[in-house]
Amino acid sequence: MSSSLLLSNIHIVTKTEMIANGFVGLRDGKIDYISTTPPTGNYEKVYISRENFYLLPGMIDIHIHGGYGADMMDATSEAMNTIADHLPSEGTTSFLATTITQNHQEIEQALKNVAQWKPYNEEQAGVQAQCLGIHLEGPFISKDKAGAQPVQWIKQPNLPLFKKWLDASEHLIRIVTFAPEEDPDFAFLSLLQEKNIIPSIGHTNAHHDMIELAAKHGARHVTHLYNALSSFQHREPNAVGAALTNENLHIELITDGIHSHPLAIKLAYLAKGSDRLMMITDSMRAKGLGNGTYEFGGQTVTVSGKALLADGTLAGSILRMKDGVKRMKQITHCEWTEIAKMTSTNAAIQLGLDQQLGSIEVGKQADLVIWDESGELMMTICHGQIVFENKEANH
Amino acid sequence: MSSSLLLSNIHIVTKTEMIANGFVGLRDGKIDYISTTPPTGNYEKVYISRENFYLLPGMIDIHIHGGYGADMMDATSEAMNTIADHLPSEGTTSFLATTITQNHQEIEQALKNVAQWKPYNEEQAGVQAQCLGIHLEGPFISKDKAGAQPVQWIKQPNLPLFKKWLDASEHLIRIVTFAPEEDPDFAFLSLLQEKNIIPSIGHTNAHHDMIELAAKHGARHVTHLYNALSSFQHREPNAVGAALTNENLHIELITDGIHSHPLAIKLAYLAKGSDRLMMITDSMRAKGLGNGTYEFGGQTVTVSGKALLADGTLAGSILRMKDGVKRMKQITHCEWTEIAKMTSTNAAIQLGLDQQLGSIEVGKQADLVIWDESGELMMTICHGQIVFENKEANH
Repeated sequence: MSSSLLLSNIHIVTKTEMIANGFVGLRDGKIDYISTTPPTGNYEKVYISRENFYLLPGMIDIHIHGGYGADMMDATSEAMNTIADHLPSEGTTSFLATTITQNHQEIEQALKNVAQWKPYNEEQAGVQAQCLGIHLEGPFISKDKAGAQPVQWIKQPNLPLFKKWLDASEHLIRIVTFAPEEDPDFAFLSLLQEKNIIPSIGHTNAHHDMIELAAKHGARHVTHLYNALSSFQHREPNAVGAALTNENLHIELITDGIHSHPLAIKLAYLAKGSDRLMMITDSMRAKGLGNGTYEFGGQTVTVSGKALLADGTLAGSILRMKDGVKRMKQITHCEWTEIAKMTSTNAAIQLGLDQQLGSIEVGKQADLVIWDESGELMMTICHGQIVFENKEANH
Repeated sequence: MSSSLLLSNIHIVTKTEMIANGFVGLRDGKIDYISTTPPTGNYEKVYISRENFYLLPGMIDIHIHGGYGADMMDATSEAMNTIADHLPSEGTTSFLATTITQNHQEIEQALKNVAQWKPYNEEQAGVQAQCLGIHLEGPFISKDKAGAQPVQWIKQPNLPLFKKWLDASEHLIRIVTFAPEEDPDFAFLSLLQEKNIIPSIGHTNAHHDMIELAAKHGARHVTHLYNALSSFQHREPNAVGAALTNENLHIELITDGIHSHPLAIKLAYLAKGSDRLMMITDSMRAKGLGNGTYEFGGQTVTVSGKALLADGTLAGSILRMKDGVKRMKQITHCEWTEIAKMTSTNAAIQLGLDQQLGSIEVGKQADLVIWDESGELMMTICHGQIVFENKEANH
């Protein structure tokens, strides 16, 4: 396995500019060179880019339950490996394993599993996507906006229970989705802030005033905008209206065109801008497996183009990040610099990991993706290693 | 009456910049000097501004039915004079007299009245706001989204009738609000374009696909966004969703915080930007008269803070442009340069009158307003004459 790689003649999308036909050197899992001219040092391997390929930071999916037959609630090392092994094929180089509302033992087991999981990366750097921690979605949400979260396990915020879970996860919980109306004294929100965990508003039926108050008290993230939120009306803007307009709130968006209409996606992009929008998949076990019947949070999900519970509720997605990018570019005609922010930089900043991840800079982890100009994913590099190469693309 | 006036030591908000403590000379109803240094020529009168006063182009209200006891549907010269006399006190220096859905004789009479009205300006320049033409609101709208338009007079687009009206108005119709679903072959829309009239989508229950199609066929304006439009839902964006996201569509917005919630106003500002938003009043007879019972389109309207039909439907507004500006600044924290666009420049461009109106440039009509930094209207100048001065403000 080569420990150094030179990417040459590629358009480099950095945080501040687009460097045309540049050179990026990777060594020992890190970026060690960025320039318009070739380096003088030696690299074991050289990748010569085709014309109009773009190099972006590897994508960070901060809301993913599973895919390719596995769910992080399976609470097995195999499930985590299945997810982490497959994600580079969609351009994802790191992710937050996301729980679903369940009985407390199952949640605890899933959290422990993440903490105890030994990714290949520790021995054999770079062959998998990296798990950056946990996104706890529920159970402290609103029964009125359960969506695909099993309503029987929804609880009011329980601080001792949450502390127990935090210990079980070995403090790997990074984001918690909760309904602020279930935490009217902001005690749970305060605990999250104290523990340096991102409080994310979601699965909430709260009025806009409550959302704005929660934002004032430190909530700074909104889980899968539009879905499972009290909806926008022009005289009652509700959670969607507050999320779209409050500068403190950064939003997650599933850009499959199914969870919300393309015009709703465009509206979120226009209102929030590319600095306050994070593309996610919210994908479940069935992703990559085709149509059929699957399990999600103990419920039966039927997949036929989209994933539905028996009552027709959307049950997570089968979206791949790379397809979300293609759709986002079609809908908004956004720039590659904006895609870099919405798929990587913003998430790294939100997670406080922007010193290591989320942009192409010397010294940062060599997690990278290469796109052709049409929005086709061509290559994924994890920790400096080529993990996925698109051999089917006709170039 | 002085035919020249120098405004000195004032912050001048031009189309391209903010000139601090500058000088603007007005002569014979036009702007003849703009500079950071005083002119050498003589002016009959000099106005020395207080610190932190801002000079903006006079406001253009493109959607106003009446106020101060008069309605343009009264079809009298007195009604037009009452409206035109009072508008400078709210910072409006020109307007489109706006009809309401009525029987065809009454509409025709109102149109003729505007055409035949002789404003004072023709003899005695500058003592009134100027009528720039007519906004025909209805009757070619959707019965499902009548709002305060009397439903019994709503008609499908009738081209011969419209041509008759156009003649009656002496071709003063500038904007027509219509429902595109009532014009599925775009015949009416085509006629409007042929006659160089702005087709404005409003009082419509159309699906977003129909709105986008109408925009492709030349519709470029949306009447009082949010109100009387099929509402936004994240999987059915409808007329509101299309209006917020389609670059061809410029929106009218009533910024009173009653017709739409402040967060909805903020959303419109974020999504459309200050280039595609026009602030309007949509005001009716009762404006300026206090609470009571009034007539609007043959219906009884009760005013108590807001204007309502018997069934609780909002019936126009009692908003003054100057109060709309104050509210808009509170809600969005926008700049004075943006207020200039949203109250004047954009409307002038949309009407094709931007060579004469809508910005502070040498050669343009001397229609101007002066604001203090808190958003209080201090002075209104029409055709180079001081028509309103705020003597109550405590400076």
